[in-house]
Formats: sequence, structure tokens, C-alpha cells
Amino acid sequence: MAGIYQRTLKLRAALRRLSPHSTFSSAATVRHSPVVPRSSFLPVTTSQFEVCCRKLHAGADGHKPSPAAAPHRLPFSRITQEDLDFFRKILPGRVITDPDLLESSNVDWLKSVRGSSELLLRPQTTEDVSQILKYCNSRNLAVNPQGGNTGLVGGSVPVYDEIILSTALMNNILTFDSISGILTCQAGCVLENLSLYLEEKDYIMPLDLGAKGSCHIGGNVATNAGGLRLLRYGSLHGTVLGLEVVLADGQVLDCLATLRKDNTGYDLKQLFIGSEGTLGVITAVSVLCPRKPRSVNVVFLGCETFEQLLKTFQLCRGMLGEILSAYEFLDSECMRLLNTHLKLLNPISGKVTPMHTLYIYIYIIKHTLMANSSPHRADCPFYVVIETSGSDPKHDGEKLHNFLEEAMTSSLVTDGTVATEDSKIKALWSMRERVTEALTHEGFTYKYDISLPVEQIYQLVTDMREHLGDRAKSVVGYGHVGDGNLHLNVTSPAKDPALLAAIEPFVYEWTARCHGSISAEHGLGLKKRNYIYYSKPSQAVALMGNIKAMLDPKGILNPYKTLPDNLK
Amino acid sequence: MAGIYQRTLKLRAALRRLSPHSTFSSAATVRHSPVVPRSSFLPVTTSQFEVCCRKLHAGADGHKPSPAAAPHRLPFSRITQEDLDFFRKILPGRVITDPDLLESSNVDWLKSVRGSSELLLRPQTTEDVSQILKYCNSRNLAVNPQGGNTGLVGGSVPVYDEIILSTALMNNILTFDSISGILTCQAGCVLENLSLYLEEKDYIMPLDLGAKGSCHIGGNVATNAGGLRLLRYGSLHGTVLGLEVVLADGQVLDCLATLRKDNTGYDLKQLFIGSEGTLGVITAVSVLCPRKPRSVNVVFLGCETFEQLLKTFQLCRGMLGEILSAYEFLDSECMRLLNTHLKLLNPISGKVTPMHTLYIYIYIIKHTLMANSSPHRADCPFYVVIETSGSDPKHDGEKLHNFLEEAMTSSLVTDGTVATEDSKIKALWSMRERVTEALTHEGFTYKYDISLPVEQIYQLVTDMREHLGDRAKSVVGYGHVGDGNLHLNVTSPAKDPALLAAIEPFVYEWTARCHGSISAEHGLGLKKRNYIYYSKPSQAVALMGNIKAMLDPKGILNPYKTLPDNLK
Repeated sequence: MAGIYQRTLKLRAALRRLSPHSTFSSAATVRHSPVVPRSSFLPVTTSQFEVCCRKLHAGADGHKPSPAAAPHRLPFSRITQEDLDFFRKILPGRVITDPDLLESSNVDWLKSVRGSSELLLRPQTTEDVSQILKYCNSRNLAVNPQGGNTGLVGGSVPVYDEIILSTALMNNILTFDSISGILTCQAGCVLENLSLYLEEKDYIMPLDLGAKGSCHIGGNVATNAGGLRLLRYGSLHGTVLGLEVVLADGQVLDCLATLRKDNTGYDLKQLFIGSEGTLGVITAVSVLCPRKPRSVNVVFLGCETFEQLLKTFQLCRGMLGEILSAYEFLDSECMRLLNTHLKLLNPISGKVTPMHTLYIYIYIIKHTLMANSSPHRADCPFYVVIETSGSDPKHDGEKLHNFLEEAMTSSLVTDGTVATEDSKIKALWSMRERVTEALTHEGFTYKYDISLPVEQIYQLVTDMREHLGDRAKSVVGYGHVGDGNLHLNVTSPAKDPALLAAIEPFVYEWTARCHGSISAEHGLGLKKRNYIYYSKPSQAVALMGNIKAMLDPKGILNPYKTLPDNLK
Repeated sequence: MAGIYQRTLKLRAALRRLSPHSTFSSAATVRHSPVVPRSSFLPVTTSQFEVCCRKLHAGADGHKPSPAAAPHRLPFSRITQEDLDFFRKILPGRVITDPDLLESSNVDWLKSVRGSSELLLRPQTTEDVSQILKYCNSRNLAVNPQGGNTGLVGGSVPVYDEIILSTALMNNILTFDSISGILTCQAGCVLENLSLYLEEKDYIMPLDLGAKGSCHIGGNVATNAGGLRLLRYGSLHGTVLGLEVVLADGQVLDCLATLRKDNTGYDLKQLFIGSEGTLGVITAVSVLCPRKPRSVNVVFLGCETFEQLLKTFQLCRGMLGEILSAYEFLDSECMRLLNTHLKLLNPISGKVTPMHTLYIYIYIIKHTLMANSSPHRADCPFYVVIETSGSDPKHDGEKLHNFLEEAMTSSLVTDGTVATEDSKIKALWSMRERVTEALTHEGFTYKYDISLPVEQIYQLVTDMREHLGDRAKSVVGYGHVGDGNLHLNVTSPAKDPALLAAIEPFVYEWTARCHGSISAEHGLGLKKRNYIYYSKPSQAVALMGNIKAMLDPKGILNPYKTLPDNLK
């Protein structure tokens, strides 16, 4: 995806040279007269525009467009002055046409995909959204629903000139039931704001993401976001209790139940969870929230083999049981990148002062490990980050102690450190969370987000390493062991089409053979839509197409996303 | 529903008198000649048959048919000799036409609904099911998918002469991954067999039901069964990871993923969870299974008010946190029925020897309660059953101790006992589980399974009591507080249409006003299909109809169920 970004940068400059930097003229009164030529990024003619947009997504190097490239623009209507007048009437002061203000909504936060929308609408209510969609559907205007625009697969930005429908102003908390822990809120509530609101009430959100400061709960639900708490609290298919959704024709579908049990008919809300805004616009959400844990511990461990890492996982599921909330891993290549590029030191290397945060750690390091390890302990092939959260700090500490003792004495892990204080917890977590950042300093990175049966997740890294040989600078693996989710990254000094050809479709075919998923938690969006057949049989994809056609017959909602191009 | 049963008994006798007790003649060779008149329960002519069937479900007393009554038979084909020949060819030895063998599959286990199917098919493989449905769809033959036939709303039996497709022989466990805890199995596996299999591997099923000895996992998923572990492990929408489903036209939809995360397109399997066999026949399931807890405790407590019971719930969510696995309640009327009809004594009444099973109990009863209570303590208005399950018996005991101490000293609960041994756990659980049985001895019972915001669940009982005055013998409430699920029961000495008219639609209107669900965990099936509008808006029901029409255009799958009659 970074590849697309780099190609995009070159092309963006070219596009800028092509386009007249004018803005919408509010004085224009021509009925249904396309205002396309006035767009900030658009070339003068539609055909030129489409060629450029396709190149933008395909890459500028003249190679055959990749399956991630944008398809041709579909024959949606162009925005007219009359359309603008209508939107200004129903959304006074909330119709954005200034290209500078539109800029950040046209580009995803990876800066890898760029649309050319000329219109951003900021509804405040469900009724606003309903009126917008009813109008757009009747006028055949394409719409790109947008939350915090933190998506990684180009699902949250327009591809061409789709109208951006932002949920940013739909940010009210509607109700919170402190007995059941059920929260209802508008779709545009920022995840972190919800978390802060709940923490005051002794609850937490069942999901947590790196992007929590920006992402909207509606977007989280629309993309079925995974995140850090999935191992403990499960997916949004279980924790979302109700949704309010506006359908393509403006109908409001009220499934905003606040009930844990409701078996009256088909569970329609499930269709919209993970549909990436292609079936309807989520306007409100009800979520079942867990109680805030009183005790949180984080452990950082080293393992000699991936098999030992898996055995440790099994041991820890048994011994930490109900307090286990994360089991993440990184390999030694990741550690090298953290050391080299971010100057983060291995917290369990003998070269740094270990964090003597708990008697557990002292006990283990002094009594078990020191006897077996040299004063300057070597790096391990694998590292594990384990988080526990529970209701009793003493009990959690004891459970952790017992687990670590067992893991150490049975030689499953070779080294480790424990943190209970916030700052130290954050320091240990950063070893896992900052791998992505470290990778950006390594050169060009080909990134894959793969879900596999947990036993097989590292085999893909090993096989890829062997398959690529010295063609890759490095092949690194990290991710959520507890969820069977591998982040596989291949780096090279620069963009390398030959290397890409060696990685793909190898990686997808490997994943398909193991019945894995080529998108574990990020969705398909624009970038991965055409790879869907690696993880879903054609009957399933055809049925998805039927559902799309049933709910959005004109296809106005988030076109070019989620479903493959060859679907009719 | 018991009302329907009693009416049914009368009618069944009448029907038996009408019907010639002949069986299928295997010598018949007429192409597509309907064999209806040979049916064991059917009257000679179709019109007579339909009138009787409708009466069967409507009641024999000549009153206007209730919304629970069966609609007219739809114009499906009748089974011919050629059909039988086809099925015998593809399912040798597994085509049942003997009325005696069909009897138990034609009647639900409450004995409240009776169909008149003349054909039971017992496929062993997904391919068998696919061939059956492909054939039935082409021939316009209606099909009633049947698991363990333990449903409570008439969803699991035929209404007329639908072919019964039993999953009983599809009972193989396919795979179990002992690292991730993911089980895949055929749909006909009995829940208890899966539990026993898993317990040997130190895992449990994420759901548990009273009917576990009979119910099939496929049926559990098709009805989105709730059960006793929902509070802890969530609904099947979260714990079912994959499904294999045969669609109405015989297409096999393979969504049998064994992944915790998979965001490649719409999550189609969700559509089939809770669709009661009306959208497809589930043939295999993959489920995420929790580790087996090493420690289980059950507490039985008394509360003076429902408000205190709710405060106790809140306290216990905080203090028991991650080990809380059930929070159930019954009122004093339930206790009276248990005492009167089943001779079960109140475990915390002063009249019986308390179970001194734990130091916790001794501590609390001796030091806290005895000082405040008379030697012969009175019954409480409300009783609570709390279950904890965790990985460390000592920790769980301490958490329970601390919680009980706090609940007692703050006067939230007035009395209590604790069990840790299996037999005593069962004894305490029986106080909650046998209420249904006790009710059957009380006379005629009108039963409702309602989901409400947890604060309101007992208000419905109170309001109903006031509303009915002395027209009811008793109005009792019990259920799953933790899930906001009330079982409301109204008894009278005998069937009483005037009482029924006072209860309905009062109960449904009350529930609708509170945005509750008129079917919390049982589904709609035949009996409740026409009440759906009390819990779902018309747009949602219309969309359900569109989904049904898309997946099963001829409507052959479990007709007359789940969706209301007035849906086109």
C-alpha cells in the first residue's frame, strides 16, 4: 500500500499541473449543469480525468493496472448548482465546497488513495442523512460515507467525485444504562471520547484501536474494526446490540435495540457490520460495554521458537483464563527495526536495566533466569506481549506469577519483564505498537494483514522468507496471536515490481490454501476488493452482490469498494 | 402456548377419527400422483384437511383464530411416488414414511403444535442435503428442517405436510484446534455430546441449555439459542465463527471459516443465525470455545426489593467482574410454587438446615445475618442465583466472599447460601430451573418470554398483577436478569379466554412501549410470527421479507414460520 502512496505522490504533481485551481461558483444557476470542470484536481475533460484517476490508483509506471487500481468511473450524475442549492437548504452552513477544506477528506490517512470530491456534507441528524440519501438516490449521485477517515484500504475516501457524507457532527451520546452497561450514541462519536465518557462511569468500550483519537464508532462498526480487545471481548458482531441505518433510498432502518437478547426475525443489523458503508449509512449505534478493569498488567517475554510461543499461549489461556486480554507477538527482525530506527531497546536484553516493577519479575529473573542466562543475554527469535485485566490486583498478580513460573520452569519462555504502572505498561506496549512506524524507516514496505489458523501464522513468514531469498531486504512478522492475525511485511530498499511479483499472488495463494483470510481486520475497501475470491467462494461473493443490489439498486453507496469489479 | 396444547389434544382426537390410518404404498407408480389421501392424519379432501389444520392451531372453541394460528396451506406440490423413488435412491434406508416413526417428528416437545408430514429424510452429508433441496426446489415441495425438535415456538415441526429434513445423522465432529479452541462439526451434533467431547480437552461450549441432551448445534444456531452462559460468553452472533449452509436451490454456501477475524466482504453467516431454517439449512458449524473453568460457585440470595436486586447485580458485576457467569432471579410466587408443587424447600429459609458449604457462608450467616434475622426467617420477595466460574478456586472464593460481605453489610441482600460442590450447585440451580415445571402443576399457564431494559423487567410483572387483579390465580416472574430477559407467567385454574384477552395485547403493548422484545431467546417460529411488529418496525420486517424472497424465492424452506402472514 505504501507502494501506491509513492506512486501517488508522483502522479499528484502531474495532476496538479493538469487542473485549473478554481472553486465552485455559488452564483451559477444552470439547472443540472455539471460543475466538474471547476473542480480543483480535475482535468478539463471527463475522459482525461478518468484516465488520470485510474493511473493514480494503478501507478504511473505504465505497468498493467493492479487489481487494487480503481475501475472506470461509473455513470453517476455530476453535481449541479441545483444540487448544491438543495443541500444548502437542508444543511445550512454545513455544505463544504472549498477545495482546501475538502483536501483532508479526499485523501486517506496513509496518503495512499486520493479522490476528487467537490462536495462534503455534514449532517447532524438521522433525518439529515435520510434527506441527503433520498435526494442522491433520486438524482443518481454517488456518496462516500466517511467517519474519522482512518481506514487502511481506501474505503473511507472517494475514488472519483462521490459526495462525501461525513458523520463528524453526529457526535452525541444518546443514552447510557449504568446497570446493563449499554451505551447508545450517534455514529460520529469519536472512540476515545466514548472511552473517556465511559471510564467516568466505571465502564470501558469493548474495542480499542490505535486510531481511537480520530476514528468514529460508526466507522468502526461499518468496518467491523478488530483492535486490541477482541481477544477478550469478541468482535462487534457480538458487542453491537443495535444499529440505526439509513438505506440508499433514504429509508431509516431502526434496529437500535438496547437488548442483549432479541430473537424477533432476522438480525438485520449484522448485515451492516463490516459492510464498509456500501449497504447503508450507520447513524446510531448501541454497544454493550464491559466494566472497567481495576487491575492491568503487561508482560514482555522472549521465546526460542514459535512452537514454544504457541505452547505459552495455550498455557496462558489456561492459567490466566478470564483475565487474559491480549497475546501479541513480534519476531527478532521487528526488534532489530525498533532498535535501529526508533532506538527502542529490548526490554529483556541484558544490555538494558530491566524494569523491576513486580516481585514476580524479581523472583523470576533472579531465581530462574539469571542461572540460565549470560550477563549479556542475546536477543530472542520471538517476543510476546501479554496483557491481563481484571477486578482484583492481588489475584491478577498471583495468577501472573503462577503462569510465569510455570512458563519459565518448563522452559517455554527464556526471559521476561512485567509492568503494572501506566507509563511502563505503555513502554512495553510500544514495542509492539511501534513496529509499523519502525518499518516506514526501512525503505519500501509491502504490507499484508492475514488471518490464519493460529498454528500456521508464522509458517507464512518462514515460507515467504525462503521463497524470496535475498530478493527482499527483510521479511518480518508480528501481530495478534490470540486472534490468529499476522501482519506480514516485506521490505526492500526501494519500490521493486519484481519483488512484488514474487510476493503476490504467492501470499494470497498460501493464505487461501490454509483457508485464511486476506483481510483479517482492515476490510477490503478499494484496495483489496478484487482479492476477495482468495478468501470467499464465488457463491458467497455472488450472494453479497445480490444483497448489494437489493439494498442499493443504483449502487450509489461507496461505489468501487468491498465487492469485486467483475460482479454483475 | 399451553392453551394451544390443550386445544390441540381435543382436536387431535377429532382428527384421528377423520383420517384413514393407511400408509404409503411403495407399489404405487403413478407419476406425480399426490399421495395425500393415504396420510395417517389427513382427512380425505384437501379442503377438509386445511380447515382442520387451521383449527388445530387456532383452537377448537370456535373463537376467531389467534395470530398464532396456522395460515392456509400454501400451494406447494404434494409428494408423489416418483418423489419417494428419488429420495430412496439418494438416501438408501434413510427415507422414513412410517407414520409411527414420523409421529415424534410431527409434534413439538411441548406437544403444542402438530404437523402432518408423511416423509422424513435423514441426510448424512452436505451433498445429501444439497441434492434434497435442489430437488424439492425444482418440484416446489416444502421442507421443514429439524434438529433436536426442542423449540418452543412451533418452528421445528411441520405445519402441514412439509418434508421433514432431519439433521440427526449429520453428527460428526470435523476438527478441533486445541490451541485456538475452535471446533467444527456437522449440524446434527447434540449439544451435550459436543460438551462432553470438549471437556476432555479442557474446553467447554460457549452455550448451555436445559435441552442440551437433545438439541442439535445446527438448531441452536438456526434459532440463535440463548441459554445459561450468554451473560458470560455472549450470543452466537459472536461465538459462531463459520457456517456451511445449503440454500433453497441446493447451492452450498461455504462460510465455514475457523478464523476469529475475517473482514473479506459481508458476514453472510450472520443472516442464518436466528433465521429458524427459513433462509437455508445449516449443515456445519464452527464455534469458538472457552476454556473449561477450574472453579464454579453458585450463590442463592434473598432481596427485599427488586431495586435492591438490581443494585446487587451492579455490585456483583463490579466485584465479581470477569468470573460472573450467571445472574438469575425468581420472585416469591415462584418460591411458593416450588414449595407447594415440587416440595422444594427454600434453601435460605430458617425452616431448613442451611448448607454450610463454605466458610464464606458460615461467616456471613453467623456473623452478619443471624444478628438481623429471626430464628424462623420469612420468605423474601426476590431470590437471586449467581454463578461464578474462573480459573482459580481460591481467588474466586475470595472475590465471592468480598462481594457477599459488601452486599450484606450494605443491606442489599438479606440472606444467602453458597455451594461449591456439584450436587449442591445442582440443588441451588434447580430452584431456578424447575420453576417452569412447578408452573405446570398450577393450572393453566399463559407464558411470555420478554426482553427488556434490565431496569424495567419486574415492572411488567407488577403492572400485569395490578392490571389483572383477581382475574389471574397468580402472576409470576423469573428469568435472566443479567440478560434483561423476563419469563412472565400468568396462571388460572383452567383455560380462560377472558383472561387471555386481558393479558394480550396488554403484554405486547407494554413491551413495545419499553422498546423490548416479545421473543427474547425462543424465536418467532409459527406461534409468534404475527407479533413481530411489536418489536420490529415495518421497514425492518419488509426487508426481512426481501431477504427471504432473495434466498428462497419459492418459499419452500420452513414455510409459515418467522415472518408474518401479511408479508408479501
